[in-house]
Amino acid sequence: MEMIDILYKKRNGEELSKEEIKYFVEGYNNERIPDYQMSALLMAIYFKGMNKAETVNLTNAIINSGETIDLSMIKGLKVDKHSTGGVGDKTTIALGALVAANNVPVAKLSGRGLGHTGGTIDKLEAIQGFSADLTIKKFADQVNSIKFSLGGQTKDLAPADKKLYALRDVTATIDNISLIASSVMSKKLASGADRIVLDVKTGSGAFMKDIDQAFELGRAMVDIGNGVGKNTVAVVTDMEQPLGNTIGNGIEVREAIELLQGEGSKDLLELCHYLGSYMLLLAEKVGSLDEGMEKIQEVIDNGKALDVFKSFVQSQGGDIKFIEQPELLHQTQDIYEYKALSEGYIHRLDAELLGKSALTLGAGRLDKSTKIDHKVGLQLEKKIGDYVNKGETVITVFYNDKDKLDGALELLQESVYISDAEKKPRKIIHGVVTENEEKRL
Amino acid sequence: MEMIDILYKKRNGEELSKEEIKYFVEGYNNERIPDYQMSALLMAIYFKGMNKAETVNLTNAIINSGETIDLSMIKGLKVDKHSTGGVGDKTTIALGALVAANNVPVAKLSGRGLGHTGGTIDKLEAIQGFSADLTIKKFADQVNSIKFSLGGQTKDLAPADKKLYALRDVTATIDNISLIASSVMSKKLASGADRIVLDVKTGSGAFMKDIDQAFELGRAMVDIGNGVGKNTVAVVTDMEQPLGNTIGNGIEVREAIELLQGEGSKDLLELCHYLGSYMLLLAEKVGSLDEGMEKIQEVIDNGKALDVFKSFVQSQGGDIKFIEQPELLHQTQDIYEYKALSEGYIHRLDAELLGKSALTLGAGRLDKSTKIDHKVGLQLEKKIGDYVNKGETVITVFYNDKDKLDGALELLQESVYISDAEKKPRKIIHGVVTENEEKRL
Repeated sequence: MEMIDILYKKRNGEELSKEEIKYFVEGYNNERIPDYQMSALLMAIYFKGMNKAETVNLTNAIINSGETIDLSMIKGLKVDKHSTGGVGDKTTIALGALVAANNVPVAKLSGRGLGHTGGTIDKLEAIQGFSADLTIKKFADQVNSIKFSLGGQTKDLAPADKKLYALRDVTATIDNISLIASSVMSKKLASGADRIVLDVKTGSGAFMKDIDQAFELGRAMVDIGNGVGKNTVAVVTDMEQPLGNTIGNGIEVREAIELLQGEGSKDLLELCHYLGSYMLLLAEKVGSLDEGMEKIQEVIDNGKALDVFKSFVQSQGGDIKFIEQPELLHQTQDIYEYKALSEGYIHRLDAELLGKSALTLGAGRLDKSTKIDHKVGLQLEKKIGDYVNKGETVITVFYNDKDKLDGALELLQESVYISDAEKKPRKIIHGVVTENEEKRL
Repeated sequence: MEMIDILYKKRNGEELSKEEIKYFVEGYNNERIPDYQMSALLMAIYFKGMNKAETVNLTNAIINSGETIDLSMIKGLKVDKHSTGGVGDKTTIALGALVAANNVPVAKLSGRGLGHTGGTIDKLEAIQGFSADLTIKKFADQVNSIKFSLGGQTKDLAPADKKLYALRDVTATIDNISLIASSVMSKKLASGADRIVLDVKTGSGAFMKDIDQAFELGRAMVDIGNGVGKNTVAVVTDMEQPLGNTIGNGIEVREAIELLQGEGSKDLLELCHYLGSYMLLLAEKVGSLDEGMEKIQEVIDNGKALDVFKSFVQSQGGDIKFIEQPELLHQTQDIYEYKALSEGYIHRLDAELLGKSALTLGAGRLDKSTKIDHKVGLQLEKKIGDYVNKGETVITVFYNDKDKLDGALELLQESVYISDAEKKPRKIIHGVVTENEEKRL
């Protein structure tokens, strides 16, 4: 087999075989195939695409380039939830408790965040003492006993994905659905879950700005999951504005706790209902989406989810005081109230800019060495479609460093737009992609 | 300016500016732009193409990557003829004399051949003593006195083309009209001609197998030439079978001499009429194509062309004996007559296979170190459309080495196909592309 023949084949629009795909992924990972041939192939794939079978084979080849995680020591069907990335997304924390409280094991392995969308471990470390640094035995035992555990991901999963991504980044071949889908799914599938629920974000704060493309990506990822025998569902959700009403670390954990107490923001609750219900459905705990939603609400109402969350935090060394008094999670030196300069409807709360504003305050890291300030963050007092009076607070800023505040406020001002014209609130769920259907809501 | 932006622009189908094209050609030539970005751009160009302005700018950028030749010390309008490469193509030798005999300077700089299509210098070196190793002064003086000189091309012309071609070769990005056209024209234009006549070959023995593509390539090259102010015409000609009736070195010179004596093969004569007439037209020696053809025939009939050729050979050290007895040019140890096994019409004389057959005999070189055998070659006694009786000779093989003969005969057998069904002879001229029109014949 020769790389040049594979290049001609894809360039001419032919389907690549499983062996050919394996050949170029392995060859590139082992540095037998040079960058310049790989980048030409990526550009040919950009133009000619890959069909379902090719995309599944690409994903499998990337998975096989490195280690995989074996979760077989954990009893029951393991369902993982994965988001394509958004601002203010504390869903993993709330969902872990909501699903575990329904007796479905949540064995979550997470990385740390880079950029303005913080990682789940970063957020939970706002709770003093909390650690995701668990041995494999402790991780498994905890899932088996209290059904919820969060570990740090340290293995070398899908190394070919890292190399391919780095090359795509410098050769204008990032935005191809098959390449994006295989990149996300290879890492997910190497993590050992039995079933997968995907949260595909769309809107100004998401990688997929366009809703049709988000559905297309959802379809490609669902096809990959089901193609390798791991039942997968994708929910396409809104990221035109941040999720819920908080952005930061401790402040997001507080919002997740509020949700478990039955006081969460409306959009976050609706999202947790959807994603949680699909997790219970895939784990074969419920027979319908409606039943799943009832079960999710049930463990909020009866306090079981909050109890599970407490046990989870305690078991991983966290101080319970922060759950009992969640306002401690974002106790900063000072706050600043960003007020409306005119009355009207909120038209824009740009998710990306607000994420960058929180990052500027110290909530995220630009490189691996930055130390995160877990306390700082933003609280959105209004969301798109809300009416605001002149002088009313739109966003409360929790900050520790006066110097950083100025930069954060600049981004914040840019992100808000108020106008007289009436504006409908955003819906949070745009639709669902399952193995056999696509439903737009 | 950043390469990644240029990549996105071309990938998205936008036109690249002159500055952007200069940036990536210079950058790649200076090794500031890595292979992997260049190959991705080449693949994007393959899919999105380049318009006329982009192709002209690409050609100019490639020319400017290296040295150029200044022919201003030679009086008059210098018209160059360039062929895209074929088998049995001795046109340059005959045309040089035909055009020079009409008082138009022919200052030809040529490289050596590699592969089955030998170079013009290799062919003329079959004449004992002939040398193309001239000083610039001697080269120019000879053109000024006898109007015809052939020098070896030693300068580093269009080095970016060499690098780009090597990369295209391994990344499946050879066959794009703009890239091919700029590659050919950059080398041609760097050689200092004022006007250019292109012989674009099409058919099984040519790079362009398809006639429409040959016209497209002709159009692209004519547009480049005229785009940089050098009046250019392309003649699209047949390479389904070898040109004329000889393949080799000395044997091809013999055929060129025969043409100058008024005894040349029909297709070669017609091609020389066309190409020569366009050369006279571009040099402003004649007012019409018909007048040009008459002038070309005139110098054959009155012996002037043969006289010029003799002076040319003598001036470059060649032994005139070989012109007076041209059969000496291919006097080999032995000959082999390849005879028809059945009667019928010649349907196929595959140019590429026959070229390889001559190469196997020793007429060409596979790498730079091979020594050429100037005497060996093939003489086609029949051409496509001719009738042949059983046992009649189709091809005469001039060989020196019995061991090489067997391999050559194998290729030769493969290249010939005879059948009962009547077969029309091939026409040699398919059409002409000028600045403002395209004429198919």
